[in-house]
Amino acid sequence: MPYANFVNNLVSKLRVENVIFREFFAEFIGTFLLVLIGNGSVAQVVLSGMKHGDFFTVNMAYALAVAFGVMVSGGISGGHINPAVTLAMALAGKCSWVKVPVFWAAQYIGAFVASAVLYGVYKDALTAFAPEPYTIQTAGIWATYPQEFLSLGNALFDQIIGTFLLLIIVMAITDPRNMEVSKGLYPLYVGLTVGAVGMAFGFNCGYAINPARDLAPRVFTAIAGWGGQVFSAGNGFFWVPIVGPHIGAILGVLAYGLTIGYHFGDDEYVVTQTKGKFFD
Amino acid sequence: MPYANFVNNLVSKLRVENVIFREFFAEFIGTFLLVLIGNGSVAQVVLSGMKHGDFFTVNMAYALAVAFGVMVSGGISGGHINPAVTLAMALAGKCSWVKVPVFWAAQYIGAFVASAVLYGVYKDALTAFAPEPYTIQTAGIWATYPQEFLSLGNALFDQIIGTFLLLIIVMAITDPRNMEVSKGLYPLYVGLTVGAVGMAFGFNCGYAINPARDLAPRVFTAIAGWGGQVFSAGNGFFWVPIVGPHIGAILGVLAYGLTIGYHFGDDEYVVTQTKGKFFD
Amino acid sequence: MPYANFVNNLVSKLRVENVIFREFFAEFIGTFLLVLIGNGSVAQVVLSGMKHGDFFTVNMAYALAVAFGVMVSGGISGGHINPAVTLAMALAGKCSWVKVPVFWAAQYIGAFVASAVLYGVYKDALTAFAPEPYTIQTAGIWATYPQEFLSLGNALFDQIIGTFLLLIIVMAITDPRNMEVSKGLYPLYVGLTVGAVGMAFGFNCGYAINPARDLAPRVFTAIAGWGGQVFSAGNGFFWVPIVGPHIGAILGVLAYGLTIGYHFGDDEYVVTQTKGKFFD
Amino acid sequence: MPYANFVNNLVSKLRVENVIFREFFAEFIGTFLLVLIGNGSVAQVVLSGMKHGDFFTVNMAYALAVAFGVMVSGGISGGHINPAVTLAMALAGKCSWVKVPVFWAAQYIGAFVASAVLYGVYKDALTAFAPEPYTIQTAGIWATYPQEFLSLGNALFDQIIGTFLLLIIVMAITDPRNMEVSKGLYPLYVGLTVGAVGMAFGFNCGYAINPARDLAPRVFTAIAGWGGQVFSAGNGFFWVPIVGPHIGAILGVLAYGLTIGYHFGDDEYVVTQTKGKFFD
Repeated sequence: MPYANFVNNLVSKLRVENVIFREFFAEFIGTFLLVLIGNGSVAQVVLSGMKHGDFFTVNMAYALAVAFGVMVSGGISGGHINPAVTLAMALAGKCSWVKVPVFWAAQYIGAFVASAVLYGVYKDALTAFAPEPYTIQTAGIWATYPQEFLSLGNALFDQIIGTFLLLIIVMAITDPRNMEVSKGLYPLYVGLTVGAVGMAFGFNCGYAINPARDLAPRVFTAIAGWGGQVFSAGNGFFWVPIVGPHIGAILGVLAYGLTIGYHFGDDEYVVTQTKGKFFD
Repeated sequence: MPYANFVNNLVSKLRVENVIFREFFAEFIGTFLLVLIGNGSVAQVVLSGMKHGDFFTVNMAYALAVAFGVMVSGGISGGHINPAVTLAMALAGKCSWVKVPVFWAAQYIGAFVASAVLYGVYKDALTAFAPEPYTIQTAGIWATYPQEFLSLGNALFDQIIGTFLLLIIVMAITDPRNMEVSKGLYPLYVGLTVGAVGMAFGFNCGYAINPARDLAPRVFTAIAGWGGQVFSAGNGFFWVPIVGPHIGAILGVLAYGLTIGYHFGDDEYVVTQTKGKFFD
Repeated sequence: MPYANFVNNLVSKLRVENVIFREFFAEFIGTFLLVLIGNGSVAQVVLSGMKHGDFFTVNMAYALAVAFGVMVSGGISGGHINPAVTLAMALAGKCSWVKVPVFWAAQYIGAFVASAVLYGVYKDALTAFAPEPYTIQTAGIWATYPQEFLSLGNALFDQIIGTFLLLIIVMAITDPRNMEVSKGLYPLYVGLTVGAVGMAFGFNCGYAINPARDLAPRVFTAIAGWGGQVFSAGNGFFWVPIVGPHIGAILGVLAYGLTIGYHFGDDEYVVTQTKGKFFD
Repeated sequence: MPYANFVNNLVSKLRVENVIFREFFAEFIGTFLLVLIGNGSVAQVVLSGMKHGDFFTVNMAYALAVAFGVMVSGGISGGHINPAVTLAMALAGKCSWVKVPVFWAAQYIGAFVASAVLYGVYKDALTAFAPEPYTIQTAGIWATYPQEFLSLGNALFDQIIGTFLLLIIVMAITDPRNMEVSKGLYPLYVGLTVGAVGMAFGFNCGYAINPARDLAPRVFTAIAGWGGQVFSAGNGFFWVPIVGPHIGAILGVLAYGLTIGYHFGDDEYVVTQTKGKFFD
C-alpha cells in the first residue's frame, strides 16, 4: 500500500531514539491515563450524586486506570507511574538513580495535565453541581482527603500499609521466578492490586498510595479555583499521601525480598520470561 | 464419524473465500453482538426500574459486549466494530482505504439489525413499562442522550476524550512490542477499556464513543415508533456521538504514536506474536 | 515419600479407563458445580432479602459457576454441562450421537443432586425466611419463572436469543483459528458469556439458557415440598427454558459458521493449539 | 551499575537456602496478605456503615486477597495459606507430613499478625464507630459469626460444602492434565473460587472456609478487648470454621479424584507445564 508507506515515512521522521526521552514520554502518558481515568470515575460518582457510580466503581475504575497506565507505558519505562515506586526501585538497585528525577517529573506533569483535561470534560457538570466558590467536596474529585475522625498519625500508617501492600504484591507479580506470570497479564494483576487496596483500605483517606496521583491534582485545584483550602484541609493532611507512599513502597520491596525474593538460588532464575524493564 | 463427514461436506459448500466478504460478515456480526448485548443491558436496567441492574452493570455488560464482538470478529477483520476505529486505522496506514466503506456498511447494518432483535426480546416488557407514545426515556435504551446541563461543545469534548482513551489504550494492547499481550487476551482488555471509559466518562452523555453503536439504533427508534424526537432531543445532540468519536480515534492513535509507538527501533519489533489483522 | 506411593497405589485401583464413563462423571460433576454455585447465589439473594447480594451478584456468581463447571469437566468431556450445547454439537458433527443420551443423563442428574445439596445448606435459612407451605418466591431459587407481563411467545424468543448468544460466542472462544485463546482461558471467557447474557437478558425470565439447569431443579422443588405449582406457574412456562435453548443453541452454532467459521480455508487451521474435546 | 552490585551483595548475605524456612516465610506472608486485605475489606464495610462497600465488595476483595496471597507465596510453598488445604494435600500424598506443622504455624501466625496490623490501620475508625466495650458487630471484622437462625449442624454442613467447593475447583485449576491453565493464572482462578463461594454460600456464616483465617483473628480479638464473647457467641460457633474446612477440604480432593483426577492414564500426563509446588 503506497499510502501506508507514505505514513511510515512520515512517522519515521518523528522517531525519538534517546532512551531517557522515550521513558519520560512513557511515564508521562502512563500517569496521565492513570489520573484521567481514575479521577474521572471519582468525578462521575461525585457529580452524579452517586447515581452513576459508587465507591466500588471508583475501586474498579482505578484498578483499570492503573492497568491501562501500565499497559501503555510498561514496555518502555516499566510502568512505574508512581514516584514512590521509582524511589523504591532505585533503592533496590533496579532503576538507575539518574532516571529518578526524570521519571518523577514525567509523573507529576502527567498527573497535572490529566487534572486539567478532566476539568474540561466535567466543566458543565461541575457548574451544574455546585457553582463557585468551590468546596472540598468537589476538590475530592482530584486529590484525597481524610475522614474527620482520622488522626495524621493513623493516616500516615494507612498510606504506608497501602503502598506496602501494592509493592509487595507487584514484586511478586513481576518476579519471573515466582508464579511465572506472563508479561501481558502484568497490567491486569497490578491494576487489581490497587483495586484490592481500595476495597480494603480506601475508607480512611482514599488510598492515594501515589504522590503524583495526589499532589499534582491538588496543585491543579489550588490554581483552578479551590484555593489554599486544598492544602489546609484535614489538619494539613496533604503531605501524608506524599510521605507515606515513599516509606511504604520501600518497606514493601524489602518485605518481599526478606520473605521470598532474596532466597531464590541463582539457578532458580528463569531468564527466558520477558524483555522490558520490570524491576530487574 | 460418517455424520461428521456429511456435515463437513455440507459446510464446505457454504464457504466464502473472498476476503472482503468475510470481513464484511465479521464486522457485521461483531457489531451486532456489541449492540445486542450492550443495549440489552441498558434495556434491562431501564425496563426493570433498576431492579435488575444499574449504571455499573451497563458498564460491565458493555465491556463484555465489546469483548465478545472482538472475540467473534477479531480473527477475520481485526474486530474494529466501530466506524471511528476503521477511519483511524485507515489514516494510520493500517487498513486499506478501499475497505473503509465496506466495514462502515457492515457496522451500521449490524447495529441496526441488533436494535430490531433487541426490540423483539423486550417487546412485552416495553409495553408493560410504558405504552405508546414512546418517550426519550425508553429511546435511551438504543441511543445515547445528554444530561440536561451539558452544552454541545462540552459533549463533543466528552466524546473526543472518550474515544481518544479507547484508541490510545487499544493501540498499546495490540502493539506486540509493548506488553506482549497474547492475542487471546485482546478481547478482555479491549472490553475493559470501554468499561473504564464508561465508569469514568459515562455521566455526561452515555459514552457512545462509536458512531455505529449510536446512530443505527437511533435510526431504528425513529422508525419503530419514537419518531423525530430522537434526533431533536438534547438540542440536536445526535451528531455529537458521530463526529466526536472520529476525531477522538484519530487523536488517540496519534497520541500513542507520539508518546510510545513511533519510537520503537526496527530491531525492537517482535514478529512472532500473532497472525491476524490487529493494526499492522 | 513412601506415603505418597501408598496413596498412588490406592488411587490407581480406582482408575476408570472407559471413556464414556469418564465423560459421564465429568458432565455430572460439571453440571453439579454449575447448579450448586449458581443457584446458591440465588438462594443467598432471596433468603437474605437482598442484603447479601442482588441480581448482579447472581450474574457474577453464575458466570463463575459456569467457569468452574467448565474448568473441572472441560479436559475430559469438553465441558458442555448443558443439554442444548450437547445437541448442537452433535448436529454440528462435533460430538458423537451415541454420547448424547449419556451426556444428557449426567447433566440432569448432576443438576438434581446439586439442588438437593443446596436445599441442605440453606435449610435453616429457608425455614426462617418462610415456613411451609413454600411459595414460588423460594421456588425461584431453583428454577426460573417469568415476569408477569411476559407472554410465552416472547419468553421463547428470549430463551432462543440468550442461548444463541451463548453458542455463537462460545464457538468463537473455542475456535483456534480465530483469536487463538489459550485453553486455560476458556473457562473464564465462557463463564463471562453467561454473565453477559444475564446482565442483558436476565430480566424477562431469568436466563436459564440451559434445560438441565432449569428442569432438574424444578423437579426437585416439586418433590421437596413446593408441589405442582412449579410447573403450572407462569401459565405453564416450564417448557420454555427446555425448548428455547435447544433451538437457540443450534442457531448460534449455525450463525457462527455462516458468518465466520465456515469460511476459514484449510490452510488457516492452527493445529497446535490444544488437546481436548472442544468442539473439534 | 555499581549501586546495583552493592545492593545485590547486601541481599546475598540475607539469603536463606533452607527449604522449610523459605516455605515457612512464604506461608506466613501469604496468609498475612490474605487476612490483611480480606478482613480489611470487612472493616471498611462495617466501619463505614456500608458507605464504602457491601457484601459483594467483601466477596471481591477476599477473592483478590486469596489471589495475591497465592501470587506471593505460590512459587515457594504452593500457596496453601489455609491449614485445611495443607492437611488435604498431606493426606493426598502431595505434601510431606513433616511440613504440616510448619505450614500450620506459619498460617496461624501470619493471620494473627495481619489481625494486629489491621487493628492499627483502623484504630481511629473503630474508636469513632463504637467506643469500648467492643461488641460482636465489630468482632465480625476479624472472625466469622453465624446468622441467628443457623443451627450448629447446618453451619458445619455449610463450612464443609464451602471448602469442598474450594478444593474440588482448585484441584482442577492446578491439574495440568485438565484445562492446561498456565501457572500465572492460578492466583486469579483460585481467588475467584473463593469469590464464588462467598457469593453463593456467604450468607449463613460468612464463608471462613479456612481455620487460620478465622481462629487466629478470633484469638486476636479476644486479647485486644472483645474478650471471651468471641468464643461463646453463636452458641459456641467458633469451632465450626475449624472443623468444617478440614473435612470439606478432604472431601473436595477426594471428589475431584473420583470424578476426574484418578482416571487420567499415565500417558495423559503433561509434564512440561510448570515448575513449583502445585499439588504434585
